[in-house]
Amino acid sequence: MCSSHANENCLGWAARDESGVLSPYKFSRRAVGEDDVSIKITHCGVCYGDVVWTRNKHGDSMFPVVPGHEIAGIVKEIGSNVRGFKVGDHVGVGTYVNSCRDCRFCNDALEVYCEKGIVYTFNGIDTDGTITKGGYSDYIVVHERYCYKIPDTYPLASAAPLLCAGITVYSPMMRYKMNQPGKSLGVVGLGGLVAVKFGKAFGLSVTVFSTSISKREEALNLLNADKFVISSDQQEMAALVGTLDFIIDAASGDHPFDPYMSLLKTAGVLVLVGFPTEVKVNPASLLLGMKTITGSGVGGTKDTQEMINFCAAHKIYPQIEVIPIQYAYEALDRMIKSDVKYRFVIDIENSLK
Amino acid sequence: MCSSHANENCLGWAARDESGVLSPYKFSRRAVGEDDVSIKITHCGVCYGDVVWTRNKHGDSMFPVVPGHEIAGIVKEIGSNVRGFKVGDHVGVGTYVNSCRDCRFCNDALEVYCEKGIVYTFNGIDTDGTITKGGYSDYIVVHERYCYKIPDTYPLASAAPLLCAGITVYSPMMRYKMNQPGKSLGVVGLGGLVAVKFGKAFGLSVTVFSTSISKREEALNLLNADKFVISSDQQEMAALVGTLDFIIDAASGDHPFDPYMSLLKTAGVLVLVGFPTEVKVNPASLLLGMKTITGSGVGGTKDTQEMINFCAAHKIYPQIEVIPIQYAYEALDRMIKSDVKYRFVIDIENSLK
Repeated sequence: MCSSHANENCLGWAARDESGVLSPYKFSRRAVGEDDVSIKITHCGVCYGDVVWTRNKHGDSMFPVVPGHEIAGIVKEIGSNVRGFKVGDHVGVGTYVNSCRDCRFCNDALEVYCEKGIVYTFNGIDTDGTITKGGYSDYIVVHERYCYKIPDTYPLASAAPLLCAGITVYSPMMRYKMNQPGKSLGVVGLGGLVAVKFGKAFGLSVTVFSTSISKREEALNLLNADKFVISSDQQEMAALVGTLDFIIDAASGDHPFDPYMSLLKTAGVLVLVGFPTEVKVNPASLLLGMKTITGSGVGGTKDTQEMINFCAAHKIYPQIEVIPIQYAYEALDRMIKSDVKYRFVIDIENSLK
Repeated sequence: MCSSHANENCLGWAARDESGVLSPYKFSRRAVGEDDVSIKITHCGVCYGDVVWTRNKHGDSMFPVVPGHEIAGIVKEIGSNVRGFKVGDHVGVGTYVNSCRDCRFCNDALEVYCEKGIVYTFNGIDTDGTITKGGYSDYIVVHERYCYKIPDTYPLASAAPLLCAGITVYSPMMRYKMNQPGKSLGVVGLGGLVAVKFGKAFGLSVTVFSTSISKREEALNLLNADKFVISSDQQEMAALVGTLDFIIDAASGDHPFDPYMSLLKTAGVLVLVGFPTEVKVNPASLLLGMKTITGSGVGGTKDTQEMINFCAAHKIYPQIEVIPIQYAYEALDRMIKSDVKYRFVIDIENSLK
């Protein structure tokens, strides 16, 4: 312990019960340990995970819940051993803040798959027994291993969604070698918008599938997708059978999978990154053409830093809508209703006071 | 056309309608073309596919249907261009007898994924417009590309099931690199028995999952599996959570997938080779631990020959029960009722007369 901040009050917004209503909440963060970085939070992305735990959807919420795991901010203090960061650095924190640091996955910088389990950024139990509190708050203290450097030229507001939404698609895209120019990618669902940007940066031919014609302009003109298809249009879907190498399915609502599987070429891969109620396919969708359905959840620390650097180098910025903390509850409510255009990012710095 | 056999009558057993009842049926095979091999069939394995098309389960049966796509026999005549076989050679024919021979899959000896579609060994339409007739018959004429050499030391009766049941598990085992000694494999379902043998030959630790204790002795003592687990035993299943690198699921009956997915390690793969009504999983089964479900159906000609050679070199013989053709209908009936111990193989040579 090398800090005078042990008793500093942290101001956050928390849900007190499963109504999920958010209101101001004061609590203490741990003192800055020798390997820790203390971060003044400027922005926090709004993720469906925030809905899940503020409303106790999984039955494991530990109230009060301070949500938020797409954190961007500025280093305000570092521990004596910290080598990777200095005061004033722009940094990010994602969905986890601790792991065993000793298993084969941690040793491979795939901490998210830590054999002893990761400590989630909020509503997790840290190794010191405290319940973690997330980024809907004015600062956070995190072991430097779980912090990422954000280049000064990259807007902190845009960086926030990279820490969950971004890495969630980037990581399987790299694992399945989707960075091969000329291959074809389908992207299903709103959560996959950043996948369109990655896909274009990788030189892929990208088709966006949506249930709503209202996304067409945006997909083609703003995101530069090559094609836009209304998923209920059977004729358009039929024309694409057997044409895609990969699909990233980021739709969280329930939907049939067989129509998308039929669009894949032989040996094609559908990566699930959304969280529908169930995944149901006809065995023929897998058997005829050695096709694959695979899941992915965020990525390790190495991948995450690499993705941030890639976004900075290629000027990839998620589409965002900046909101004040006072609007966060309504933003979560709109997520439940799928009434979302871009990723919400809370302007913590200017609204949480 | 270089043969005098064009008008030779071929004797088979066929289903005349969707009752699936089999009875003797005479028909003509094509004359032996310059690239063809004519094979006196000695044995034919009984596969669930035979049930599907003799009983019109997919609504696409073209009666009369002569089933059988696990064919073993002896070359009796060859065309003038045939270089790979000579009269007297022991050979096999699997689930397909033609493909375009010109697409990227055919060029990679992955003919089973031919872009123009393979011609199935029976109930298929060949390039000359004839409906193919399978191995429940006394001879067959096949382009040499779709014939496999069976070493003289390898019993023809044992070779038959390799041509579908064998290659169906061998092919994904190679694709997912299951031939790494020390890795752990789970095998679900009767159809996967030969996977146990491949697994042991590859140096894997193999666990057999069954619904019936009656398979225990056989799994452990005859097949040399390392473990045997009754899939309904929740305590035994719980003890195996997160311990398997691979699962080959050869169960054709409906069953839950989530319990098996939970047995996989991070990045584990379940290969579906059976054909249940549906595949349904909780997204968490894929998302937490980047797990994969993939399908596979038989393999290309290169893989198939490699597998036969591997079986001969490692003295791997499928467990079989040899039956006369007169018992074939009852055998198919028993398959429907899952009342099967080993793979049925029809002794064509001695019973079809």
